Amino acid sequence: MAKVGIIMGSNSDLPVMQGAIDILEGFDIETEVDIVSAHRTPEKLFDYSKNAHERGISVIIAGAGGAAHLPGMVASMSPLPVIGVPVKSRNSIDGWDSVLSILQMPSGVPVATVALDGATNAGILAAQIIGSSDKCVLDKILAYKEGLKIKVNKASDEMKK
Amino acid sequence: MAKVGIIMGSNSDLPVMQGAIDILEGFDIETEVDIVSAHRTPEKLFDYSKNAHERGISVIIAGAGGAAHLPGMVASMSPLPVIGVPVKSRNSIDGWDSVLSILQMPSGVPVATVALDGATNAGILAAQIIGSSDKCVLDKILAYKEGLKIKVNKASDEMKK
Amino acid sequence: MAKVGIIMGSNSDLPVMQGAIDILEGFDIETEVDIVSAHRTPEKLFDYSKNAHERGISVIIAGAGGAAHLPGMVASMSPLPVIGVPVKSRNSIDGWDSVLSILQMPSGVPVATVALDGATNAGILAAQIIGSSDKCVLDKILAYKEGLKIKVNKASDEMKK
Amino acid sequence: MAKVGIIMGSNSDLPVMQGAIDILEGFDIETEVDIVSAHRTPEKLFDYSKNAHERGISVIIAGAGGAAHLPGMVASMSPLPVIGVPVKSRNSIDGWDSVLSILQMPSGVPVATVALDGATNAGILAAQIIGSSDKCVLDKILAYKEGLKIKVNKASDEMKK
Amino acid sequence: MAKVGIIMGSNSDLPVMQGAIDILEGFDIETEVDIVSAHRTPEKLFDYSKNAHERGISVIIAGAGGAAHLPGMVASMSPLPVIGVPVKSRNSIDGWDSVLSILQMPSGVPVATVALDGATNAGILAAQIIGSSDKCVLDKILAYKEGLKIKVNKASDEMKK
Amino acid sequence: MAKVGIIMGSNSDLPVMQGAIDILEGFDIETEVDIVSAHRTPEKLFDYSKNAHERGISVIIAGAGGAAHLPGMVASMSPLPVIGVPVKSRNSIDGWDSVLSILQMPSGVPVATVALDGATNAGILAAQIIGSSDKCVLDKILAYKEGLKIKVNKASDEMKK
Amino acid sequence: MAKVGIIMGSNSDLPVMQGAIDILEGFDIETEVDIVSAHRTPEKLFDYSKNAHERGISVIIAGAGGAAHLPGMVASMSPLPVIGVPVKSRNSIDGWDSVLSILQMPSGVPVATVALDGATNAGILAAQIIGSSDKCVLDKILAYKEGLKIKVNKASDEMKK
Amino acid sequence: MAKVGIIMGSNSDLPVMQGAIDILEGFDIETEVDIVSAHRTPEKLFDYSKNAHERGISVIIAGAGGAAHLPGMVASMSPLPVIGVPVKSRNSIDGWDSVLSILQMPSGVPVATVALDGATNAGILAAQIIGSSDKCVLDKILAYKEGLKIKVNKASDEMKK
Repeated sequence: MAKVGIIMGSNSDLPVMQGAIDILEGFDIETEVDIVSAHRTPEKLFDYSKNAHERGISVIIAGAGGAAHLPGMVASMSPLPVIGVPVKSRNSIDGWDSVLSILQMPSGVPVATVALDGATNAGILAAQIIGSSDKCVLDKILAYKEGLKIKVNKASDEMKK
Repeated sequence: MAKVGIIMGSNSDLPVMQGAIDILEGFDIETEVDIVSAHRTPEKLFDYSKNAHERGISVIIAGAGGAAHLPGMVASMSPLPVIGVPVKSRNSIDGWDSVLSILQMPSGVPVATVALDGATNAGILAAQIIGSSDKCVLDKILAYKEGLKIKVNKASDEMKK
Repeated sequence: MAKVGIIMGSNSDLPVMQGAIDILEGFDIETEVDIVSAHRTPEKLFDYSKNAHERGISVIIAGAGGAAHLPGMVASMSPLPVIGVPVKSRNSIDGWDSVLSILQMPSGVPVATVALDGATNAGILAAQIIGSSDKCVLDKILAYKEGLKIKVNKASDEMKK
Repeated sequence: MAKVGIIMGSNSDLPVMQGAIDILEGFDIETEVDIVSAHRTPEKLFDYSKNAHERGISVIIAGAGGAAHLPGMVASMSPLPVIGVPVKSRNSIDGWDSVLSILQMPSGVPVATVALDGATNAGILAAQIIGSSDKCVLDKILAYKEGLKIKVNKASDEMKK
Repeated sequence: MAKVGIIMGSNSDLPVMQGAIDILEGFDIETEVDIVSAHRTPEKLFDYSKNAHERGISVIIAGAGGAAHLPGMVASMSPLPVIGVPVKSRNSIDGWDSVLSILQMPSGVPVATVALDGATNAGILAAQIIGSSDKCVLDKILAYKEGLKIKVNKASDEMKK
Repeated sequence: MAKVGIIMGSNSDLPVMQGAIDILEGFDIETEVDIVSAHRTPEKLFDYSKNAHERGISVIIAGAGGAAHLPGMVASMSPLPVIGVPVKSRNSIDGWDSVLSILQMPSGVPVATVALDGATNAGILAAQIIGSSDKCVLDKILAYKEGLKIKVNKASDEMKK
Repeated sequence: MAKVGIIMGSNSDLPVMQGAIDILEGFDIETEVDIVSAHRTPEKLFDYSKNAHERGISVIIAGAGGAAHLPGMVASMSPLPVIGVPVKSRNSIDGWDSVLSILQMPSGVPVATVALDGATNAGILAAQIIGSSDKCVLDKILAYKEGLKIKVNKASDEMKK
Repeated sequence: MAKVGIIMGSNSDLPVMQGAIDILEGFDIETEVDIVSAHRTPEKLFDYSKNAHERGISVIIAGAGGAAHLPGMVASMSPLPVIGVPVKSRNSIDGWDSVLSILQMPSGVPVATVALDGATNAGILAAQIIGSSDKCVLDKILAYKEGLKIKVNKASDEMKK
């Protein structure tokens, strides 16, 4: 049963959102991926948002670009933590529209926003959220952080050569 | 029967949105005013957006601040022209978030965006939309424009004195 | 007889503005396309703006880049609803100049601004304005929205495969 | 035992951060509040970040202004989900520095960023994270959302009077 | 006979534009002040722009705020050098709209833009333009520059005391 | 004898600044072109600025990128009108640094700023300044404006075909 | 004999620049304070910049607002390290002009830029530069950092009470 | 023994940071280059920052992109002058995040920030800091400045041919 729901506003967001799918696979956390457009499939948005927590989903990752309303609208209807990924889409004004439309949610309805095109980080954050109550996943996060360190040290060694 | 529906995300937007109510009253166009929050009353948002055109509404004016999703979400579900008013709310980042969240809609779902806190202009635009098929309202717009000219000329005369 | 007048500041804006022409053709709404430069042909701007509503035009779409004065100047002289398309022209500062020059109109003279390079949305908005008093066009808008939904669902189905 | 650690870079951030403390109290979730400055008490930052998960903390909320390094540095050392609150401090450039320093974390080390001065939302997000594995807290979130709706409806009723 | 025409979009711009009037008076250069609104009195704009050079005007200073089209539209119709003063009006987005609407003119139609609210500098620039072919005015500019130096040196002396 | 001095901070600015040279050649106005770097040849900057008006120069055009100090420093020492061209150089932050460093001069020392990379407009503005006291050049400006109009009309005719 | 030269473009910058004077006094490092305006006293700027290192000055702190050319111009002529303080002056566009005019220096001529209105930090940086070759000053810096820590810990203790 | 420590957050920063290495080599100042990631190797960051001044390092140059915490965190723990190089990394929002995260340090902990990707200038600034107490290096800086002048003059001569 999927623990993390990953949705995006358009299939053109997939190359960016793949980062979240891949990292969660690396943590052995099952995901469920779909296209849900706030502006083109509002009924699907409603169904998805209202029912996700009842289907066993623990965290939702939503990516969108431009006037990116998907993460905020999901957050308005789901009690689950929603992670928003601002996507730098084709007609975006350098990404500022995506970032501000997702980040600046009104009081009462938070979206956990990550960096522009930061889907990998959205996946790690989802794992950390699960890990906050699951010792086994927490240990994987600790190992992952150890791995980051090792990579940097290797690069440092190579540079010195 | 109301021709223009005016909605806003919060009653704190009313001082700004009053500009639209007043100008439309001046054009003798009936309005209907309500609070519809995209993030706090999503079901009401759905009902409002799906039915407005069946209740005789011709144009919808929607004002909101911050990550302002109301105008775009109404536009996603209503076939009517939707005018968006970016409101410079208290925690807004100088209004940029409101402007970009309303303006930068994806292809397929336009919002007719006016200036930051530009509710009066939203009202005039609604009248122009009605006037585009109603000679009587069109004449009122022409008279209104004449009035603007007279005011500037009076100010010019006073300055020269 | 053309219902929508589409004008642009330079023929270099045509690739962007074609989006409005194409979508309105799809709605069987007749358009009239021309180049009117606020800064290089001010007399033509005056004639166009003052007379469009008397020639049967219902909505004007005006696209321009940089210090984009065309939409606002047309709006200053025509009683019709004017839709402004900010074009990201070659020397534009990332599009900010086009957006702000069109959006931030003073009280009394609105321009219905759409997203940067959002000519397709300008065309849809023009159709919605006509549809607000024309049941037949309104139905086409409803069908268009249904089409958007179907495309997203198809993309969703393909992704799941 | 505290479930949520709330830290801030300076006691001048307290008026903003109080929003997180209050909302979590409303959800009956125990918090632990402290000042930890990335730039003035780096050793305390290290101790705090490395040990929080071993003391039973599930989520960390960190608020800071200007070149706000606190949330990101905590995230670099703790396996827990870290929520960052950009504070619009006195010498901040309109809040942009706080927002970008917290949001734009490199791949591998996410910070769940909320709106500028959005400490209340940080508290709600912390509750949602806990609620994602605790049915009782999830129900409180659902009730809280219901409360938001009721407030908007009451304001709507009053406006109509 | 006036040498410098000073116009502004609204009488609310006068407190800023007074800077240009005062400094030119100090240089004994005659000015002519009026309100000309690009958006509310377009016919007056046409008359003014087309005729100024035939009435003996040598330089035009035009101030406006928001989507500030006045300086650029005057420049489109007058062969004279046009100095644009971006005014930080009430609903301006921090002045960016005024600055970009005036500065970013397309190739062929320049506006000599000065700093936000920089009407005093607009007046000095007008004097320098006249001085470029009038030895007497040039000498006044040199004397003015000497005066600036003396003031700074006086302030320096006082600080050292 | 040259009437317009054109200087730039680096030979890498020449491709942009060529626009000013070419347009002034078209107006039969003699120019003098040189490299003067505010930051690398400050003594040359001093000599140039202090003496230009004594060598018969009437207008100075100065182009520079990044923290562009050249136009403002020339303006601090020359009584002549100085036109500043913000150049979008390689490491510029999207041109904002060049624009703001040239535009936002303190009271007392104006720079006539044109659009980003707007050297052609700088040349036209220089011609207009000369034309403000030289009927023959003024007529060339009027003819140039007529030429712009003809080009647009030709493009309009071609589009309609 | 003064070790640090502190200059500013105008006496209106003194309230901000006082921060540098005070902190250096606290480190027992002698300073010399003056007004040097790049735009109004260019000759003084030249003398100051060319001679400072011969009078025993080791570091120069220069503060200015708007199109802030003072720090960069001093850096162009002095071999000493120059610290630039962007001042948020009255007509500054939110400080962006001051920051970019000082920070974005071309290759070859660095300015050590500190935060907007960050004169205290400029003073500390000057002390660190002196301390990099003066063990006694280095120890004072270490003590100062210890003091910062103690203050935060005291605030932390008080908050917990 | 190395006098200048050059560190960067990732080996992808090396092409930019090479500018600092090369220029310092040209000044015969020994450098020590390493990768230290604030977010992936926080312990190494601590060790490096706390000990650099005891190993004979006089100045630290730190380059990083995005939410660039490396320079500020080093500055929080080292008494040495720290020069920060904002790197325009791949997912940076046009470099604004890197610039603001490094520049806007809180009072008490300065970072000497140079231009975006300005590593060469960071190297020159490091040499100037050393030169402020080392006559031999100061003379090299003076010679370097002379060299810049000669290059510009040569380019000027070539342009005139």
